[in-house]
Amino acid sequence: KLPRSIGILGLGAIGLEMGLALARLGVRVVAGDLKSTPAGITDPEVRARALELFSPELTTWLGHPVEVKAVGEALRMHSGEASATVDLVLAALGRQPNVEQLDLAKAGVTMDTHGQPIVDSATLRAAGKAMLFLAGDVSPDRPLMHEAIDEGVIAARGALHSLDNGTDKAVPGRRAAMSIMFSNPDVASVGMPYDRLDMSRTVIGTAQGSGNGRSRILGAEGNLVRVYVDRHSGMLLGAGLVAVRGEHLAHSLAWAVQRGDTVEALLAMPYYHPSIEEMLQSALKDAAKQIAANRQKDASAGFYTNLTGRP
Amino acid sequence: KLPRSIGILGLGAIGLEMGLALARLGVRVVAGDLKSTPAGITDPEVRARALELFSPELTTWLGHPVEVKAVGEALRMHSGEASATVDLVLAALGRQPNVEQLDLAKAGVTMDTHGQPIVDSATLRAAGKAMLFLAGDVSPDRPLMHEAIDEGVIAARGALHSLDNGTDKAVPGRRAAMSIMFSNPDVASVGMPYDRLDMSRTVIGTAQGSGNGRSRILGAEGNLVRVYVDRHSGMLLGAGLVAVRGEHLAHSLAWAVQRGDTVEALLAMPYYHPSIEEMLQSALKDAAKQIAANRQKDASAGFYTNLTGRP
Repeated sequence: KLPRSIGILGLGAIGLEMGLALARLGVRVVAGDLKSTPAGITDPEVRARALELFSPELTTWLGHPVEVKAVGEALRMHSGEASATVDLVLAALGRQPNVEQLDLAKAGVTMDTHGQPIVDSATLRAAGKAMLFLAGDVSPDRPLMHEAIDEGVIAARGALHSLDNGTDKAVPGRRAAMSIMFSNPDVASVGMPYDRLDMSRTVIGTAQGSGNGRSRILGAEGNLVRVYVDRHSGMLLGAGLVAVRGEHLAHSLAWAVQRGDTVEALLAMPYYHPSIEEMLQSALKDAAKQIAANRQKDASAGFYTNLTGRP
Repeated sequence: KLPRSIGILGLGAIGLEMGLALARLGVRVVAGDLKSTPAGITDPEVRARALELFSPELTTWLGHPVEVKAVGEALRMHSGEASATVDLVLAALGRQPNVEQLDLAKAGVTMDTHGQPIVDSATLRAAGKAMLFLAGDVSPDRPLMHEAIDEGVIAARGALHSLDNGTDKAVPGRRAAMSIMFSNPDVASVGMPYDRLDMSRTVIGTAQGSGNGRSRILGAEGNLVRVYVDRHSGMLLGAGLVAVRGEHLAHSLAWAVQRGDTVEALLAMPYYHPSIEEMLQSALKDAAKQIAANRQKDASAGFYTNLTGRP
């Protein structure tokens, strides 16, 4: 039996997915987060679109701490000026690594201010003099199952490599980063996040709404896809999106980032009609247009030297 | 207002998609095709799975001509031993190219036995002495909108190229072939079709059912994905599938075929959990296992020479 109302503390993946699921089952949902953005979104346009799409479904309190007090059978929530009474509260605040009993500090591991081990995300070796490799949900970098599988291999190879420098089993690299909220429309980010882009050398190709009737039937009118592209090489660096079936676009984009694909190479790929993938094509076309315009501008500013001798 | 029952002549894309849509709206559907396979499927396992999934929803008569007779207000359909009475009949038999008024034969175009122009699908030049290029739905090769857009460019560039051999605008190649029925689960084929594979040098990697809870929620239990891989190079040649969200898998696979990706390269890509894309990973792993087993077999049969000198 579902409650009539629920408060959710934390608007990460779990908070957002559970909040929307419960709201769509008819529960009144109030979800709060100390952070000012839900689901770890760093792209301000994706953030705005996600809030626009989801706030009619659930009340979102962002950027303030949330307090909860028991008032009889109910729970009273406060956040800044806002308050609400709910039947239940779900705490979706993430987990602490389950390493407390291991006394890692005594083993020579350097701990952070929260008392958690510091781990190098490329090698998974813990900081400090201990020869210790930590795989899985221990570090907050990518607490995802498909990453944990890789991390097992990376940690084991790293340990073997440290024991025997002659081993020919190289430590594998990390795959292209990908984060997906199954929120329908999905929120996803791929490759380099928006807040780490060097804007002086980035163009952002955008597609929104729906280009075809079938996408409209799938509810794609609110879709927003943003691809981050190096303006000089044309290489795809990353993407942020909120889109129906966005998880699949995220896969195509992550594969392209991992391969080091350029916008030009991606525009040569097939895009079936009518499909959601046509939005990728539109975003990439937008990026290509900006790159071409920039080249022209840079050329007339003397940035490029004409090496071919042609006019 | 929907009819209570409908007969569909032709089980190509339109016949299958309309038939399933009407069946899911509560209409009794009887669909027949002279061909023994629906939706142009050539992979026998994909065919069997598609029929298994769809035949509880619509009655399918395959491999026999269908006759229709008016009986009062109703229509009586016959196919082999089978017969049914329906309210309406939808003819989904494809279209004839709209070129009859053009008198192409008089212009020197070679026509086929059905009186249609023969067109080279790579260059779109019509056979015969006429310098004529035909784009769009004229040839039955790929009557798809996203292909028609390419064909406009190919035909125009081909024509320009023929007029002026010195043009530096090359005639673009065709993209990786992709065919998708939006039948939910989708039927799709990518790259080289099953009936054109050289089986002596092909391994087929298979994944079926659903590997994770979320796929089960999406109704993926009946999914079947088959990837066709060159057993020597490990290169992905094509794929056939019937799968929930299969249109998105088809895109990833078509992009991989167009890039000439190997199974090894594709297994290095990220596959988010829990997602339908994990089925691709499973099918590719199955192919990789077969390739490794074949290599071992071939090596012990003396097919390979050890060039490294290592044991």
